[in-house]
Amino acid sequence: MEQQEDRFTDPAYRAAVIDLLGTLAYGELSAFIRLSTDADLAPTLAAKAAVAGLAATEYAHFDRLRARLVEIGADPEQAMAPFVEALDAFHERTKPSSWLEGLVKFYVGDGIASDFYREITAYVDPGTRDLVLGTLEADKRASYVLHEVRQAISEDPIKGSRLALWARRLVGEALSQGQRVAADRDSFSTLLSGTGELPGMGLAGIVSMFSRITEQHTKRMAEMGLSA
Amino acid sequence: MEQQEDRFTDPAYRAAVIDLLGTLAYGELSAFIRLSTDADLAPTLAAKAAVAGLAATEYAHFDRLRARLVEIGADPEQAMAPFVEALDAFHERTKPSSWLEGLVKFYVGDGIASDFYREITAYVDPGTRDLVLGTLEADKRASYVLHEVRQAISEDPIKGSRLALWARRLVGEALSQGQRVAADRDSFSTLLSGTGELPGMGLAGIVSMFSRITEQHTKRMAEMGLSA
Repeated sequence: MEQQEDRFTDPAYRAAVIDLLGTLAYGELSAFIRLSTDADLAPTLAAKAAVAGLAATEYAHFDRLRARLVEIGADPEQAMAPFVEALDAFHERTKPSSWLEGLVKFYVGDGIASDFYREITAYVDPGTRDLVLGTLEADKRASYVLHEVRQAISEDPIKGSRLALWARRLVGEALSQGQRVAADRDSFSTLLSGTGELPGMGLAGIVSMFSRITEQHTKRMAEMGLSA
Repeated sequence: MEQQEDRFTDPAYRAAVIDLLGTLAYGELSAFIRLSTDADLAPTLAAKAAVAGLAATEYAHFDRLRARLVEIGADPEQAMAPFVEALDAFHERTKPSSWLEGLVKFYVGDGIASDFYREITAYVDPGTRDLVLGTLEADKRASYVLHEVRQAISEDPIKGSRLALWARRLVGEALSQGQRVAADRDSFSTLLSGTGELPGMGLAGIVSMFSRITEQHTKRMAEMGLSA
């Protein structure tokens, strides 16, 4: 706990954590809104209720992240503001045109984002780490989506190749918006790459992180029955 | 508790309670989805977060109602199904075209629905009553909406007369969809009006209930600074 307080006296560290929590918070809030909107596409009442449940979980995460921002003396709106444009652009460019596209988007997007945030937690204080990891436990949520997508593909294989294409588009958009954020936000990039004062993964570390994330993504695609 | 079990052995009573919980559950689920969708219209991040919070509360209510349906041996999807068409039609015909319209819709719709369900609880067993009343405590949610609408009207009075017109349309649509449900669902109407076996409010009681609800609605409109 004391060590944690120590790190927050470093303005660069503090700014990086606020960026981390801010992007995560707006990510959850915008995922909540998109997912709830997608619930309208649900083919059955049970599916609608299930997706509403996923969305409600995203809101609960958002609420915890917001509380943490307040706790460390940051303004949640100000912390989220720098990431609104990139996240909104991502969602704007990847509006699902069907129920299945919505599910695949949730699974792919949630998976990549979770992997990324999990990697970052290696460089933050224990309090921040626990909070971030707590918002990432996606197992229960994922199994519902997995089941739905696999069943749909097994009934109609052509759907599988269309959804694989859709997933590639999602990854492309996520990467291009992610690069935009990294270029704009020095404090965030510094947390990742490290500087004299802050331990980070370095450039080589970043490259290997991306290869790990890609590997995980390929694995998730295979789980759904889709080629990456 | 024993008395409660007794009442459930009466098939007419049981059917009426399932109807009550089913309509309430789908009401919360569809309100959740509509409200989350409206969050997209929010002018600020703080407003977006606030509306997402209102929506998440609706989901929590839905979840409790669904659990209760399962508890009394009913299928939640089957219980909700008869009310999907009317509630979807209501939302379809009353899509807010602005952030303020969305807030007024929430305040007016939530208010009328709450008053109606509260009236019904006089005729149900204590377990059902507590659950229904628990989903209706709207004070905390309402105060945010009230504040926003009043402020917007004080800044631009023309907005006030437009929103008053909008609220009248909402009430008209709510009444016409409500009548449709009442005409379709005998068990529900019977709970309200009563029969030989079931105590109800009778026709005169229904008329006076509507006048009480109208009165409350007029009061809420005045609170927002709108003429009913």
